[in-house]
Amino acid sequence: MQNIDQYLEQNRQRFEQELCQLLRIPSVSADSAHKADVAKAAEWVADQFRGMKLKVELIPTAGNPIVFAESPPVAGAPSVLVYGHYDVQPPDPLTEWKSPPFEPTVRDGNVYARGATDDKGQMFTHLKSTQAWLATVGQLPLQLKFLIEGEEEVGSANLEPFIEANKDKLACNVVVISDTSQFGPGQPAITYGLRGISYYELRLKGPMQDLHSGTFGGGVSNPANALVAMLSALINERGQVQVPGFYDDVDPLTGRERAEFAKLPFDEAEFMRKLGVKGLRGEEGFTTLERRWARPTFDINGLWSGYQGEGAKTVLPAKAGAKFSFRLVPKQDPKKLSAALEKKLRELCPPGIEMELVDFHGAPGVTVPLESPFVSAASQAISEGFGKTPVFMREGGSIPVVATFHELLGVDTLLLGWGLDDDNTHSPNEKFSLADFHRGIKSSAHLWRHLSQIRA
Amino acid sequence: MQNIDQYLEQNRQRFEQELCQLLRIPSVSADSAHKADVAKAAEWVADQFRGMKLKVELIPTAGNPIVFAESPPVAGAPSVLVYGHYDVQPPDPLTEWKSPPFEPTVRDGNVYARGATDDKGQMFTHLKSTQAWLATVGQLPLQLKFLIEGEEEVGSANLEPFIEANKDKLACNVVVISDTSQFGPGQPAITYGLRGISYYELRLKGPMQDLHSGTFGGGVSNPANALVAMLSALINERGQVQVPGFYDDVDPLTGRERAEFAKLPFDEAEFMRKLGVKGLRGEEGFTTLERRWARPTFDINGLWSGYQGEGAKTVLPAKAGAKFSFRLVPKQDPKKLSAALEKKLRELCPPGIEMELVDFHGAPGVTVPLESPFVSAASQAISEGFGKTPVFMREGGSIPVVATFHELLGVDTLLLGWGLDDDNTHSPNEKFSLADFHRGIKSSAHLWRHLSQIRA
Repeated sequence: MQNIDQYLEQNRQRFEQELCQLLRIPSVSADSAHKADVAKAAEWVADQFRGMKLKVELIPTAGNPIVFAESPPVAGAPSVLVYGHYDVQPPDPLTEWKSPPFEPTVRDGNVYARGATDDKGQMFTHLKSTQAWLATVGQLPLQLKFLIEGEEEVGSANLEPFIEANKDKLACNVVVISDTSQFGPGQPAITYGLRGISYYELRLKGPMQDLHSGTFGGGVSNPANALVAMLSALINERGQVQVPGFYDDVDPLTGRERAEFAKLPFDEAEFMRKLGVKGLRGEEGFTTLERRWARPTFDINGLWSGYQGEGAKTVLPAKAGAKFSFRLVPKQDPKKLSAALEKKLRELCPPGIEMELVDFHGAPGVTVPLESPFVSAASQAISEGFGKTPVFMREGGSIPVVATFHELLGVDTLLLGWGLDDDNTHSPNEKFSLADFHRGIKSSAHLWRHLSQIRA
Repeated sequence: MQNIDQYLEQNRQRFEQELCQLLRIPSVSADSAHKADVAKAAEWVADQFRGMKLKVELIPTAGNPIVFAESPPVAGAPSVLVYGHYDVQPPDPLTEWKSPPFEPTVRDGNVYARGATDDKGQMFTHLKSTQAWLATVGQLPLQLKFLIEGEEEVGSANLEPFIEANKDKLACNVVVISDTSQFGPGQPAITYGLRGISYYELRLKGPMQDLHSGTFGGGVSNPANALVAMLSALINERGQVQVPGFYDDVDPLTGRERAEFAKLPFDEAEFMRKLGVKGLRGEEGFTTLERRWARPTFDINGLWSGYQGEGAKTVLPAKAGAKFSFRLVPKQDPKKLSAALEKKLRELCPPGIEMELVDFHGAPGVTVPLESPFVSAASQAISEGFGKTPVFMREGGSIPVVATFHELLGVDTLLLGWGLDDDNTHSPNEKFSLADFHRGIKSSAHLWRHLSQIRA
């Protein structure tokens, strides 16, 4: 790897310049005014692969094009699929940016621009590591496939159908995604678990129209009263979800995981200070990290009923509604949950109230077994790239494409985040540490080697 | 009373013409464009009293004038204060009126106009009965005082200070108000009880800003979860309020009251059909009428938190809030309730949530003892005026001025409603039955006689 490492050192400046080229393209997928910029970014990425003499396709979809590139198979070595996205969030509010969002500017070792960390900068590390192999060794030690989409920031509506229709093309042994964060500054991490989600809207209808709460109060079911009673019955005061069967498929946290979590330098006082809260509360019997990363939850995301204006209005509302979601851990089945939830809510629904439960979407949680050789390979590569052994963490959110890869391609995903929590993803002044950019490239280059040594 | 009854018969047409004069004045108190019309209506009412040679004052307030008139005291007979209002609700939406709101039109024995029943038509009955006494007998058998305000439809902000400052002027033995409804067509009623109210807003604050429900869910208290848990803890599934001490001062319904309620021709199936509900639910152990009229309640009037738009947003809200109110029965003290409620909510509030409880307003419930001689007098008068014995009913809403009269003047109020439930109060096509208008005048004329026989 010496030649490669040397090549990376010698090309730092060029890599940064190229990254800035990509960051200058305002590929905002949510804004149709940027349609041409989105196309330009796709072309720019495709050009990178063309420069490496990889087989490249720019594949149109109902939305923005997918860039697909691949190197030849290598006998006995695995195939690895790299997923990333070239589209970015809108930059608003513009006035809060210290330097313009599409004029990448370096301050204190960070490049500031929309997309710096999410996901142009992180995704680009895997292109540069690949180029380094090809420029020095002349070939890759394993087959790489790149799937770089342009609709991640608007829901990836065309991605799953594409994967479904192209299972052979995308066939691989493992997926690599760099679109997350390190545990903290100077502490790289491998994210080996994501929670799933099941999201619902509950709509309750009582009387035909809003009634006078004096004349009718006590005589007729109040949908807002019913709503709070029904929702509060879904979780007890110990933070345990009360939908029958909810925990049946929840694997207990292993001793190893709990020990690993406990070793992480998580500062609860600092966490509370950042959030502006004076206390924390969640499922009894688990630490804050365990509750955020590895335990299922019930959270109300929205509530509405009756009069929300100023002052007092004595109305008995005709309707009430809520949006709420469960975060799920692996093996919990959103469909099974939906059925049990609907049954429970119907039992709780009082006379005189009609209920409708809208099932928005469900995605199961995923974990990569810590014992997986892919995880070991990633751990070694990151140790070499960052000069520090990565910690193993999970993440409370959901990255639906990871579940899709698992379901449709039957493979696990390595989530190797080079970003930091305070990179201002989706916010003004998005940034990416250039040191981490280069460490990411080096880790990626070493990853190809370590992964190539796993028998496919 | 024969002369009086004969006079009333002979003057039916004139009474109706005069009522129409008053109804033609668009005295909409909520609309400053009608300021002059409001003043005109006050003058018109004052002129009526001047025509009867009563002592009249048109008293300016910070808002609209109060018309006050009185007849001389009668030794040994009580003084009676008649309260009413000359202002009306806005007529919108205008397009839904079959005839213009300020061009009174008679159809099927009803006069259609804004203010027909609320409260010009009903209030006017007491002026005409008084005039009948003066025109025939030459004097009243008791002292009458009239307090006719012009801000009832906008909250009567200037009324309580006026009463407070004029206790001597307003001193009386009983108050009479006609601004409610009969039990049903052909079934007059005396409303002898009103519920009080205590209205609150609960504001919960969690993290400084909305958080990602995946990354943070389970780790930090969710204000919307806390809100539904706290609110649902205020009432159990049997419909019983769970604030400590809430029922301590609630008198049980008497056997007589329950028997009277049970005798009323209340059609529960028809009630449900009108409301569009398939079932009713309220405090266990009580009938629907008992629950609406004579039992305290807890109703949520408004709810809000997080995302209320279309689709799914995975937000852990920073804030949640609710408006809610208790309807109270006599002897329940809103201040005592506020203290117990705040204590209970603070106990329920989980770590990481800050709560604020806003106490909007409280008014106690009131009842007139059924054994009161004033009630008997009213019952006899109505029997004579309507040709049918009135039933005794209560009303679930609150008429704050009734509690004010009780508190500041130490007197009960007779609520003698000549209207009907379907009079479209506050709605297009407001109406008042002319037959009931004349029955009301006759009842009122007889009421003065029956009340005069009570020793003051």
